[in-house]
Amino acid sequence: MSHSIAIIGASGYTGAELIRLLATHPSFEIKALAANSKAGQSLGAVFPHLRHLDLPDLVTWEEIDFDAIDLCFCALPHKTSQEVISKLPKTVKIVDLSADFRLRDPEDYRKWYGNAHGATEMQEEAVYGLTEFYREAIAEARLVAGTGCNAATGQYILRPLIERDLIDLDEIILDLQCGVSGAGRSLKENLLHAELSEGTNAYAVGGTHRHLGEFDQEFSALAGRPVEIQFTPHLGPFNRGILATAYVRGEAEAVLEALQQAYAEEPFVVVLPMGETPSTHHVRGSNFVHIGVVADRRPGRVIVVAALDNLCKGSSGQALQNANLMLGVDETAGLMLAPCFP
Amino acid sequence: MSHSIAIIGASGYTGAELIRLLATHPSFEIKALAANSKAGQSLGAVFPHLRHLDLPDLVTWEEIDFDAIDLCFCALPHKTSQEVISKLPKTVKIVDLSADFRLRDPEDYRKWYGNAHGATEMQEEAVYGLTEFYREAIAEARLVAGTGCNAATGQYILRPLIERDLIDLDEIILDLQCGVSGAGRSLKENLLHAELSEGTNAYAVGGTHRHLGEFDQEFSALAGRPVEIQFTPHLGPFNRGILATAYVRGEAEAVLEALQQAYAEEPFVVVLPMGETPSTHHVRGSNFVHIGVVADRRPGRVIVVAALDNLCKGSSGQALQNANLMLGVDETAGLMLAPCFP
Amino acid sequence: MSHSIAIIGASGYTGAELIRLLATHPSFEIKALAANSKAGQSLGAVFPHLRHLDLPDLVTWEEIDFDAIDLCFCALPHKTSQEVISKLPKTVKIVDLSADFRLRDPEDYRKWYGNAHGATEMQEEAVYGLTEFYREAIAEARLVAGTGCNAATGQYILRPLIERDLIDLDEIILDLQCGVSGAGRSLKENLLHAELSEGTNAYAVGGTHRHLGEFDQEFSALAGRPVEIQFTPHLGPFNRGILATAYVRGEAEAVLEALQQAYAEEPFVVVLPMGETPSTHHVRGSNFVHIGVVADRRPGRVIVVAALDNLCKGSSGQALQNANLMLGVDETAGLMLAPCFP
Amino acid sequence: MSHSIAIIGASGYTGAELIRLLATHPSFEIKALAANSKAGQSLGAVFPHLRHLDLPDLVTWEEIDFDAIDLCFCALPHKTSQEVISKLPKTVKIVDLSADFRLRDPEDYRKWYGNAHGATEMQEEAVYGLTEFYREAIAEARLVAGTGCNAATGQYILRPLIERDLIDLDEIILDLQCGVSGAGRSLKENLLHAELSEGTNAYAVGGTHRHLGEFDQEFSALAGRPVEIQFTPHLGPFNRGILATAYVRGEAEAVLEALQQAYAEEPFVVVLPMGETPSTHHVRGSNFVHIGVVADRRPGRVIVVAALDNLCKGSSGQALQNANLMLGVDETAGLMLAPCFP
Repeated sequence: MSHSIAIIGASGYTGAELIRLLATHPSFEIKALAANSKAGQSLGAVFPHLRHLDLPDLVTWEEIDFDAIDLCFCALPHKTSQEVISKLPKTVKIVDLSADFRLRDPEDYRKWYGNAHGATEMQEEAVYGLTEFYREAIAEARLVAGTGCNAATGQYILRPLIERDLIDLDEIILDLQCGVSGAGRSLKENLLHAELSEGTNAYAVGGTHRHLGEFDQEFSALAGRPVEIQFTPHLGPFNRGILATAYVRGEAEAVLEALQQAYAEEPFVVVLPMGETPSTHHVRGSNFVHIGVVADRRPGRVIVVAALDNLCKGSSGQALQNANLMLGVDETAGLMLAPCFP
Repeated sequence: MSHSIAIIGASGYTGAELIRLLATHPSFEIKALAANSKAGQSLGAVFPHLRHLDLPDLVTWEEIDFDAIDLCFCALPHKTSQEVISKLPKTVKIVDLSADFRLRDPEDYRKWYGNAHGATEMQEEAVYGLTEFYREAIAEARLVAGTGCNAATGQYILRPLIERDLIDLDEIILDLQCGVSGAGRSLKENLLHAELSEGTNAYAVGGTHRHLGEFDQEFSALAGRPVEIQFTPHLGPFNRGILATAYVRGEAEAVLEALQQAYAEEPFVVVLPMGETPSTHHVRGSNFVHIGVVADRRPGRVIVVAALDNLCKGSSGQALQNANLMLGVDETAGLMLAPCFP
Repeated sequence: MSHSIAIIGASGYTGAELIRLLATHPSFEIKALAANSKAGQSLGAVFPHLRHLDLPDLVTWEEIDFDAIDLCFCALPHKTSQEVISKLPKTVKIVDLSADFRLRDPEDYRKWYGNAHGATEMQEEAVYGLTEFYREAIAEARLVAGTGCNAATGQYILRPLIERDLIDLDEIILDLQCGVSGAGRSLKENLLHAELSEGTNAYAVGGTHRHLGEFDQEFSALAGRPVEIQFTPHLGPFNRGILATAYVRGEAEAVLEALQQAYAEEPFVVVLPMGETPSTHHVRGSNFVHIGVVADRRPGRVIVVAALDNLCKGSSGQALQNANLMLGVDETAGLMLAPCFP
Repeated sequence: MSHSIAIIGASGYTGAELIRLLATHPSFEIKALAANSKAGQSLGAVFPHLRHLDLPDLVTWEEIDFDAIDLCFCALPHKTSQEVISKLPKTVKIVDLSADFRLRDPEDYRKWYGNAHGATEMQEEAVYGLTEFYREAIAEARLVAGTGCNAATGQYILRPLIERDLIDLDEIILDLQCGVSGAGRSLKENLLHAELSEGTNAYAVGGTHRHLGEFDQEFSALAGRPVEIQFTPHLGPFNRGILATAYVRGEAEAVLEALQQAYAEEPFVVVLPMGETPSTHHVRGSNFVHIGVVADRRPGRVIVVAALDNLCKGSSGQALQNANLMLGVDETAGLMLAPCFP
């Protein structure tokens, strides 16, 4: 039995990554690809790496016949996403990859994104898409909100530790390096090869990155009290990958054990032996997360490092994993590709 | 029904690429992984990107029980390869990824590789592994010799043109850029990131590159007369990919038509519309070849450009495609992964 | 004694490179920096790598007091450049880095650039800025036209060979790889890090690249008959550097000797020993050109490879070398920086 | 008046960087270049980017006539360095770029480097080479110990804050990304382009990096009590550059003011306006340090980010700055090169 899939926002990198993954999915069939600014073009014109696939040309999302669609991935920019999704028929299941439905509180949304939310009802309905921690709700959901890629990485490290009350909640620092595809296919000077290759820099320093909205919401809910972490992202000269280095207070053995426990049954989360740390090279192009724990020389301080591919596990891979759950197929379908190294 | 696979030389890049591809193959099961210098180690220790796979530890090739093996990939350096392969039981099918069985004439082998061939009988038996052109023989073969990655790229451009007598055989120039993984996982100064990134250089200039042995053999056989092309490879600051730019004399329309004809039924070779040229970015991590034809401003001169991934279609992907044929399974099994872009 | 310098178009890469070089020039003083779209900003805001320099803020070019300027570098896009330069007082010496005054024939200009030339008188007056070959005329000139960066690289290889009648004029192929800074600081999708890193492609294939206008003009003039070469540029995943690989018909010894002779007294052109070829890594950030000659295995065919830094020797370094000549100071002033490797 | 310079260890990256800088130094003349493993070769054979320089061939250090040398740079690996330096005549001034004379306490040396120190007397004599903080002592010294490149970066951030008692000494975290040239020209698998490009990883996690010996020594001395920071370096896919992100407890305004004060007269240290942070791109190839301060959203927490070029300001540039002081010439001689961007 096959399922009919639509993708809105197919001309961006997360759209392309969805199509890459769906190319080998056993039961999902792409029935419609929308990208309003490029409607009428073939997918191969927009993404030549996908030219070998036999897929429908790009249309506007308004042209899609949603009666024939089981599930729709929406890979639009935030704000546009809520506008479009609120107009889709309620019969179609939706995985949204934008930021629009990640935050449950309209005030939080306004605070981090600068505009009032235009679909607060759906905001309430949406299930937060961090698969490993919202699996049951996702399976039942009509609308799933894909997480921020940095937000996902940090939570893979910190959720099990907060949940088990193993670390000092007031002393969490998350230092992170993100590859450039996280910024999307947008024409900005700092994303040019000439500006970005051969060096690195921090950005959104001091607590201004929007993914902090997700951290605050999720960690505070888990802890039952407000939790505010420090978070500094850096932009690295590579296309795919996030490496998050977390500084926490606790005991390394307990931290490792908690992570091992939390992810023992997870198909995509690999916890490394004590003292080993991961590399983004080794998850590139895949849906895997690698996590490692090291005790600092200073007692009671622990460093935890996690690596994932921002486009895959941090975005489109997660979206597909959730879609699998929502449509009742094997959660790992289309996602067992091994990382592409070197 | 499943087939039992062994890989000798599993600690190099082509070995790793084989394992990456086999990870989603529907019917091949890896039963043994050999790497004599790393025997006893887990695969995850040698290639952390493959640590999620449930695979046997590395052994020496002598430890493999070949009675239980249907097909063995041999990804050793040349010379070592012939020594090992000549000791394997004749019952096991072999796809060799080294240079040892590519040249049919022992004298040619000595000329290009500097040593006498130690297994001339097998050299005679081996089928040249350029799938699209040796498909029937490969399906029947016991020993298939994987082609050089540069040699494959050049042949995808030139074979149909030579075969159809469309170009001047004395005026063929092949200019090529190859990614660094083509040099393998070897500790050489010029392969260090600090030496190789952020620039490019030619190497083996003037007709000394060993893949010329394959070009000479194949093109001369096709033409029924000696053909010697000019060939200049360059080393580019990227890991995967070969871009070959061929300068030939003929008519662009006829050239394009010949390529379209030759590859019309091929699952992995995409011929672009007249005037478009390919990019290695768009085949990275995949088994696809993209080929484009452009007429030069000077009448009677044509430029043909081809792009493939040296580790995949140029080596391990080709090897798997051949193995599929040899074991009678769908030729594309395990190989339909879309390119990994960006 | 010092000279007063202005730069128009200071917010692009060639403008920045001029300022980098002038930072250690013994006698040139930057008096004005113009960039109309960024007028009012500090240079450090536009190019943070130059923030340590004590320089005037950006102004519009109309605001510059040209009475106080000895020489003006003009680093604007073509077409804009001719419009601006035709309005500058005739008392100021000008080195133009655009394409506007490279071609002497207005028809050639229209053919390659698509618009009529608006300052044909100045077009006639301008001296072609390939220093080593136009040194005397440059020293006397009021207006010098900087060459195309690819055009410079090809001419360093081919001029001495054509001039000495050493090669077949109908059989010249120039295959070239160019770093991305050659495309300037422009917001184009294909210049994004995510699109360009980790791969390569050809562009302007078949004889459509505008620098062919320069090749045709210069080589035909040298030969006293029309010369049309074949030229294929590739875009490489590195910021600085051009590697040109030329295929010519002639004798390698004679070719090498001609190059050695031509450049024996040149401070910036290094001819390598027979059989050695250069690398862009080894000229990065400098005004040097490295050239190497190799005999092909096929008699009578020679490969010549040249490397230079497109932003420096291919553009701003050349411009400064010419300015030095025009103002009667040591030709190498400010230009002896060693390449930046690794 | 000129000074005669020797370099021992001229075949490594820091040796090459010294030669690059000395190429435009107004009064230092290179009289001898030693590299025992490559003695007899020309410098151009070992470093083709320096082939245009008219320099002596490589010799063994034993062959150098030290009577004719004013100052010797020693760019050998640690341990070898102390063995060689202890045999040099006491009349020659020495700037050592190894780790051998950075730590004053022989026990500290043994702890961090694993072997007993073989020249403890000289260890005592050596002046720590962080120019801005040891300027007077350096000017008088016979033997100056270049600092670790990471150690320098961290100290530029932290010394003024510790000295002025502005931050909590028990709560300092330094997270750092270092380019690959910091690892030298050594043949290690993880330094290959294929392994290192397109991703990042942490290393020496948990307080095991040797530069912590320097931090502990210097910060404890400054504070008058033991100070132990947390320090996590990462290896980034770029050749040059260190970006250090420090998490400290204090007030951002006071922190910024302290840094502005400390570096007000420094020619190479640029403190950015409040809220701006630096990028390694903008110091590449230069002797400049850029430092920026941002207040975190959590009161009392401050992030300070510093960028420098590990090979230049972090190593050879610092060495030259110190040599200038030791020989009484302008401290900035040979060091005012603007960064090479893009």
